[in-house]
Amino acid sequence: MIEVGIIGGAGYTAGELIRILLHHDKVHLNFVCSTSNAGNPLAHVHQDLIGDTRRCFSNEISTDVDVVFLCLGHGQSKDFLKENTFSEHTKIIDLSNDFRLATEGNSFVYGLPELNKEKINSAQSLANPGCFATAIELALLPLAATNKLMGDVHINAVTGATGAGTALSETTDFTWREANFSHYKAFEHQHLAEVNATLNSLQKNFKNELLFIPNRGGFSRGIFATMYTSFYGSEEEAVDLYSTYYETHPFTVVSEKAIHLKQVVNTNKCLLHLKKYKDKLLITSAIDNLLKGASGQAVQNMNLLFGLEETTGLQLKASYF
Amino acid sequence: MIEVGIIGGAGYTAGELIRILLHHDKVHLNFVCSTSNAGNPLAHVHQDLIGDTRRCFSNEISTDVDVVFLCLGHGQSKDFLKENTFSEHTKIIDLSNDFRLATEGNSFVYGLPELNKEKINSAQSLANPGCFATAIELALLPLAATNKLMGDVHINAVTGATGAGTALSETTDFTWREANFSHYKAFEHQHLAEVNATLNSLQKNFKNELLFIPNRGGFSRGIFATMYTSFYGSEEEAVDLYSTYYETHPFTVVSEKAIHLKQVVNTNKCLLHLKKYKDKLLITSAIDNLLKGASGQAVQNMNLLFGLEETTGLQLKASYF
Amino acid sequence: MIEVGIIGGAGYTAGELIRILLHHDKVHLNFVCSTSNAGNPLAHVHQDLIGDTRRCFSNEISTDVDVVFLCLGHGQSKDFLKENTFSEHTKIIDLSNDFRLATEGNSFVYGLPELNKEKINSAQSLANPGCFATAIELALLPLAATNKLMGDVHINAVTGATGAGTALSETTDFTWREANFSHYKAFEHQHLAEVNATLNSLQKNFKNELLFIPNRGGFSRGIFATMYTSFYGSEEEAVDLYSTYYETHPFTVVSEKAIHLKQVVNTNKCLLHLKKYKDKLLITSAIDNLLKGASGQAVQNMNLLFGLEETTGLQLKASYF
Amino acid sequence: MIEVGIIGGAGYTAGELIRILLHHDKVHLNFVCSTSNAGNPLAHVHQDLIGDTRRCFSNEISTDVDVVFLCLGHGQSKDFLKENTFSEHTKIIDLSNDFRLATEGNSFVYGLPELNKEKINSAQSLANPGCFATAIELALLPLAATNKLMGDVHINAVTGATGAGTALSETTDFTWREANFSHYKAFEHQHLAEVNATLNSLQKNFKNELLFIPNRGGFSRGIFATMYTSFYGSEEEAVDLYSTYYETHPFTVVSEKAIHLKQVVNTNKCLLHLKKYKDKLLITSAIDNLLKGASGQAVQNMNLLFGLEETTGLQLKASYF
Repeated sequence: MIEVGIIGGAGYTAGELIRILLHHDKVHLNFVCSTSNAGNPLAHVHQDLIGDTRRCFSNEISTDVDVVFLCLGHGQSKDFLKENTFSEHTKIIDLSNDFRLATEGNSFVYGLPELNKEKINSAQSLANPGCFATAIELALLPLAATNKLMGDVHINAVTGATGAGTALSETTDFTWREANFSHYKAFEHQHLAEVNATLNSLQKNFKNELLFIPNRGGFSRGIFATMYTSFYGSEEEAVDLYSTYYETHPFTVVSEKAIHLKQVVNTNKCLLHLKKYKDKLLITSAIDNLLKGASGQAVQNMNLLFGLEETTGLQLKASYF
Repeated sequence: MIEVGIIGGAGYTAGELIRILLHHDKVHLNFVCSTSNAGNPLAHVHQDLIGDTRRCFSNEISTDVDVVFLCLGHGQSKDFLKENTFSEHTKIIDLSNDFRLATEGNSFVYGLPELNKEKINSAQSLANPGCFATAIELALLPLAATNKLMGDVHINAVTGATGAGTALSETTDFTWREANFSHYKAFEHQHLAEVNATLNSLQKNFKNELLFIPNRGGFSRGIFATMYTSFYGSEEEAVDLYSTYYETHPFTVVSEKAIHLKQVVNTNKCLLHLKKYKDKLLITSAIDNLLKGASGQAVQNMNLLFGLEETTGLQLKASYF
Repeated sequence: MIEVGIIGGAGYTAGELIRILLHHDKVHLNFVCSTSNAGNPLAHVHQDLIGDTRRCFSNEISTDVDVVFLCLGHGQSKDFLKENTFSEHTKIIDLSNDFRLATEGNSFVYGLPELNKEKINSAQSLANPGCFATAIELALLPLAATNKLMGDVHINAVTGATGAGTALSETTDFTWREANFSHYKAFEHQHLAEVNATLNSLQKNFKNELLFIPNRGGFSRGIFATMYTSFYGSEEEAVDLYSTYYETHPFTVVSEKAIHLKQVVNTNKCLLHLKKYKDKLLITSAIDNLLKGASGQAVQNMNLLFGLEETTGLQLKASYF
Repeated sequence: MIEVGIIGGAGYTAGELIRILLHHDKVHLNFVCSTSNAGNPLAHVHQDLIGDTRRCFSNEISTDVDVVFLCLGHGQSKDFLKENTFSEHTKIIDLSNDFRLATEGNSFVYGLPELNKEKINSAQSLANPGCFATAIELALLPLAATNKLMGDVHINAVTGATGAGTALSETTDFTWREANFSHYKAFEHQHLAEVNATLNSLQKNFKNELLFIPNRGGFSRGIFATMYTSFYGSEEEAVDLYSTYYETHPFTVVSEKAIHLKQVVNTNKCLLHLKKYKDKLLITSAIDNLLKGASGQAVQNMNLLFGLEETTGLQLKASYF
């Protein structure tokens, strides 16, 4: 059994990790650390866990577990790792944005299996991608991998209220969010750096702009992204390109039919759809922001790190409605 | 492997069955029959299944499978079984209300594991309980089993739009249902007969009224039921009574804390909460109408019929938000 | 023009008052006081008011306006009136629960027009009823007025997220509230005292219990209440009784057809529906908690206080969907 | 009083017209025609109207009313006007797309007051703009009017379920629509012709592309649109340009602060927000699709046709939550 520890156990991504790992048959949950909730049952915070576990949050960390998931706020993972040392064999999977960008001294591998499966297999530390970044990168990887990104990419995406984290706020209050719609950080979302780095790792000459408008939608889970860019082949060629690229990736699926968000909610899938219009290729991408966009992908990465079948513990029943 | 057939494969309950059974490791899906969709991929109707299966609906039935689930409309199961004969060893699990009530010649066992686990183990045919009936019966079984139902029971419950079936209708149209609330069939819901029969099977003298108001809520999944009746013990005694009764039943859980609907959505659980007020005991009960109220319970019954662990394939990740 | 002041201008009920009064052609909004927002435009808090008014919140009170609406938290109106003195001719309409119950020295008239229209016409100070209290009282007034309340009343009602006030909280967070359902303060909601007092003012001998379960629904606006009690007449007699009682009350309407919540949302109406089942009368009642349950009723009261047509400024377009 | 007739009285746009006109103090509703509902009370279809009117749908048309609103499906207005002749003084306001484009023999004036107020004042027949077209045109008019459209316009917009009409359909069913998101008719929405025609009427040389992705959102009312294009002035210059353009138009408001959809729901407003990013101008536009995008604008047009204050009957209370 893989001994697992979770740091920052009270947030959304930790909750999803626990939901998955409690039923993952190769994993033993060693500790779930939450300083603010130490001593309380997990089920008092993640209230759907009642009946599944009587375990409590701990305040202590076992430093020789096999893998630690860091579910801390952005900026806090670095501090945590400065203050805490794990055994040499302990793998780290960080869900924050602290280690996603290549910088001097950063040895973390970017944990997008559809990009980096081999490097992930042998990595010591992984930086789990951002949720918007995952949805966008999976929609563009086959183009970048074949040097076919030829112009600006016009991206519009909408995310649910869980995308904003568990802290109470005006825009996640029910009376604001329900049946509402708005955008934020237009053209300047922090995930753009990550997406640009990924695309440039494949298509060295990519210099065009990613014009990205992120939106807040009146739902809890999911990201639905559309993007279009110039493409000189036919729709069939695009479908072939994408289908071939994702042939060995069990969670990313190219749909012949138009897609909608709820096809992927509560699953680890990314659904893609392609449509050609004049010289433009429109790519639609849908994920669950907490699963393929966070904790599901983190478990997928863990499976790869430990030589398990990539889908272990991740064949989740969609809620669908 | 248990060879499974599904009749009426295009509806909500069949969809949930397929979602569960595709990942149930003791089951092989032999056929999914839908006359109106024969030849089409399952994933064209149950669109979240894209990437999970390429199987199509069939028009043909294999008559010697191990178990057949009937997911037909109420009244149609009887007709179907008149026109189709299965092998002697084929078990039948009917999700309609055709065989729930004991009548002459009805050999179906009422498939509520918390009531009838031993009979289910050795049954040939099972009538899966109704969704409201499940929520209400699980809230009252411990009282009836100890002859403690002493007065009328005042029941109010709300169900989601999937409770109304897949046919398009005014009250399941989005512009009607969203943020709306209404009741229907007050005091006269068809599940009352089922609940009364169950209670009388335990407490022979039960003659009081079940005053039940069913409501339509602005959500897709779930039933949340409250009911109160006279109870002469303390709250602690009630909690003991219920906890003891459900000790050996993995899906029915007594919560110390007040409960809310989303704790059970997309799971096979029934959560119960007890509160004493003066001489009244208030019992709150929450289930997912499509799972513990239909297809999840049907799989739980199948597990019992075939001697499997009751929870096999049913340790589902809650969506929670 | 009636000179109006509003105290506690940043909350839900103040927002609704402002929305109504800005288009009320007999009213001039003299001041909207909010200590925490003084100097900011109203439209920065009540953001739909952009384009309607450039007025700002003030920190100062004009003490000789014609009427002051107190939109403060429960318990704060009393303190406010101790610290602030208005001119003799200034009428006070308090939307909190501070003055609803008759106690020694409380000269406030209970502002339910369907109960007290004559007293309201000549009152100096009014206590605007609670939202649940309004929905329940309007459902029971015709019975109490004719001494026909003969047994316990079993009440179940659901309210929207605006019922909880503007402070951020777990149960008004979107990820909790959306598609969820739960109850709170079962049998012990504070509005029961108000309802009991009203019923006893009409039917002196009323000693039965009001068994009331309030619920939180996954919507923003509205209260939908069902209640049943013994009734010895026919359904037709009940309809006659209610129709006659409400004949002169423009906002309370008896519907022949079953009702649903969205018929009243964003209006000042109360819809009632009656159904007889055996010896029970089931009464269904629906209001918008912020309008007929708060600010709409407050304006209705103001209209009565100043001799205007009761419906002035209150013929609101329903949103309906 | 203006005598008004409505054709096609059972749909969403007719319902909104009736809601507005019942409280419009210069209007008398002469007839509401619905062949399928003739003889039934309006309130049986538009159920929020209970208590407001006892009027019934008629099957007959009075041909000398002052104005007729055609609320028929697209393509049916032309047929209707061939088969029915109104008096010479009767004005026609058509809410379909039958007369929006200038074609030989089409004498209808395009009824966008912010574009055509003078022509509308003296028109005989008006073609009321489409909902998406209204949201997009109002976002671009000031640029086109000053020949400042310099490149392609990248448009993304989301509409509610009422945008799809009252016919029951898969994508307006609650279990599909709730918490879901999808796009349709990408780059090919029929309103693009209308938008192009409007822009070209102002900026003769406009030849760039409007790249428009329409989306279905999980809400009932409203359109939220974002679009960006090259703009060589500063953000301040853009704000000045827009503010000046809309100075005399009471319903279109430029917001300094970022906007969200619910600011306009259940009002006749269009809110606009401007943001400069590098050489791009991002324009955000929000309307209620049934009001400024349909029936509200139709009444605004009627007010202009009859020399009334443009806002008469249209100072609607926002629902806001």
